[in-house]
Amino acid sequence: MSVLVVGSVAFDTVRTPFGLATEVVGGSANYFAVAASFFTDVRLVAVVGEDFPDQHLEFLRGRGVDLRGLRRVPGKTFRWVGEYGFDFNEAKTLDTQLNVFADFTPIIPEDYQDSEVVFLANIDPDLQRDVLRQVRRPALVAADTMNYWIARKPDSLRRTLQLVDALIVNDAETRQLANEPNLVRAARTIQSWGPRILLIKRGEYGALLLAEGEWFAAAALPLDSVQDPTGAGDCFAGGAVGYLAKRMRFDTVSLRQAMIMGSVLASFNVEAFSLDRLRTLTMPEIEARFAVFKRLVHFEDLAAQPGASR
Amino acid sequence: MSVLVVGSVAFDTVRTPFGLATEVVGGSANYFAVAASFFTDVRLVAVVGEDFPDQHLEFLRGRGVDLRGLRRVPGKTFRWVGEYGFDFNEAKTLDTQLNVFADFTPIIPEDYQDSEVVFLANIDPDLQRDVLRQVRRPALVAADTMNYWIARKPDSLRRTLQLVDALIVNDAETRQLANEPNLVRAARTIQSWGPRILLIKRGEYGALLLAEGEWFAAAALPLDSVQDPTGAGDCFAGGAVGYLAKRMRFDTVSLRQAMIMGSVLASFNVEAFSLDRLRTLTMPEIEARFAVFKRLVHFEDLAAQPGASR
Repeated sequence: MSVLVVGSVAFDTVRTPFGLATEVVGGSANYFAVAASFFTDVRLVAVVGEDFPDQHLEFLRGRGVDLRGLRRVPGKTFRWVGEYGFDFNEAKTLDTQLNVFADFTPIIPEDYQDSEVVFLANIDPDLQRDVLRQVRRPALVAADTMNYWIARKPDSLRRTLQLVDALIVNDAETRQLANEPNLVRAARTIQSWGPRILLIKRGEYGALLLAEGEWFAAAALPLDSVQDPTGAGDCFAGGAVGYLAKRMRFDTVSLRQAMIMGSVLASFNVEAFSLDRLRTLTMPEIEARFAVFKRLVHFEDLAAQPGASR
Repeated sequence: MSVLVVGSVAFDTVRTPFGLATEVVGGSANYFAVAASFFTDVRLVAVVGEDFPDQHLEFLRGRGVDLRGLRRVPGKTFRWVGEYGFDFNEAKTLDTQLNVFADFTPIIPEDYQDSEVVFLANIDPDLQRDVLRQVRRPALVAADTMNYWIARKPDSLRRTLQLVDALIVNDAETRQLANEPNLVRAARTIQSWGPRILLIKRGEYGALLLAEGEWFAAAALPLDSVQDPTGAGDCFAGGAVGYLAKRMRFDTVSLRQAMIMGSVLASFNVEAFSLDRLRTLTMPEIEARFAVFKRLVHFEDLAAQPGASR
């Protein structure tokens, strides 16, 4: 099945305690597309400038990403400059140059309009609804957003949320969006606005799923090899939504596995700058790490234990 | 089997967004003892002043806590005053009055010296070693510590750690103790100093176990009913160590279950101020919540899924 993703493709300059990467390829739709491409066909709608390298577009095509929706226009590509301290859960933005992304108006190619799964990466909620007006009847609409839109366009965001099946945000955004410090109550409030599925990202602490009235907690893998957390959230979304598109089932069993698949992709992505780790990643590595996540949280029932008196 | 716990019994005054509790019973050894008492006999070594209520001592005795090691001396009981904002992972200490706890010198009654499991709550690492000199051959020594001792008595703490099997600390303490921002590397460094088992508490994010070269992640239960996080870490330790004392096995299977049992006890404790929730807690409630934790993290293997193409 096919996933349509609409969002940013960018150049990132990132400093972490482990190094500096200058003008490497990034952007939420870019990370998402590569992560999802391990599971499904991906259709990318985004805009880049004349300075964007063909080499990366070839890499995306090689991963089965359909680029007919990627426009290259006069001007410079979106640039983000940020740094992380030892707390990898918080990026400090040093500079943002929207460049050609400032005038981004998503135009969905006709061949994309039958996409069964749509992921609206973090863009203006007005544009997110523009996208949905241009597609027919997706089986699943997933979306991201951020504090910027929550603060500046709350009404538009609420209208978008009415059309979203699965919202993928971090815990701070969950609380801010619902204006409720308790995460459980915040999640329920947001569900009442539309999204029946909530995937809440918590960085190095893992992620939570609320669906069908039930919570699921996905642990993050303790890693000694984290280099750069940039794009981890988008790789999580790409792994999760890509896996759901492959299965085309959105029940609890599939959603829980999708949460782990998202965690697997994110755990690989942070091991190198940009999306370098995903360039060499293989499906056997993904499956092996899925099993590692299974072992990570496994414990025996009380009753199953010999010698466990009650 | 018997657990010996040495630490503080106190009066806490705590303000959270959900209310204020004034001079309620608290203290790390107190919380630990009550939590552990659901699984094993507990022997308590601590000191209180003349102002400490008989009523609470009767409650402890009723839960099977041996109080022959609890001294009541002239003066006032240890008092702590703190508050929490909406971030329940961080307490702000407003006042500490050590009172009779300032001169606390643990004296282990002769009948306690054969204790098979020892928990050294958060006290001066010199005193922690004093305790270990007074017991014979415990099968398991577990210990807590805090930033205060890590900063002020690092050498003494290192000597104590050489004698400790299981260290139970939070993630910030783990990083500070090892002087290493990466948690995985920090944990390995601490292990090289003595403790072969590390239980790392992460508040609302759950807890991590490192033992036998393997990580285990225990999720925390998303709760909409958190009233007061005070004592959650000590209830975690009490549930975990109490469960281990009941089983008297310290293998991976038991340790992983103990992590969940600690999480279960902590999850109940935060539902009310002081240790009020534990006063009415029953073993069937504990077992039911253990099963909830199992369901919380359950997901199917990839291979087990019908329709999961590889």
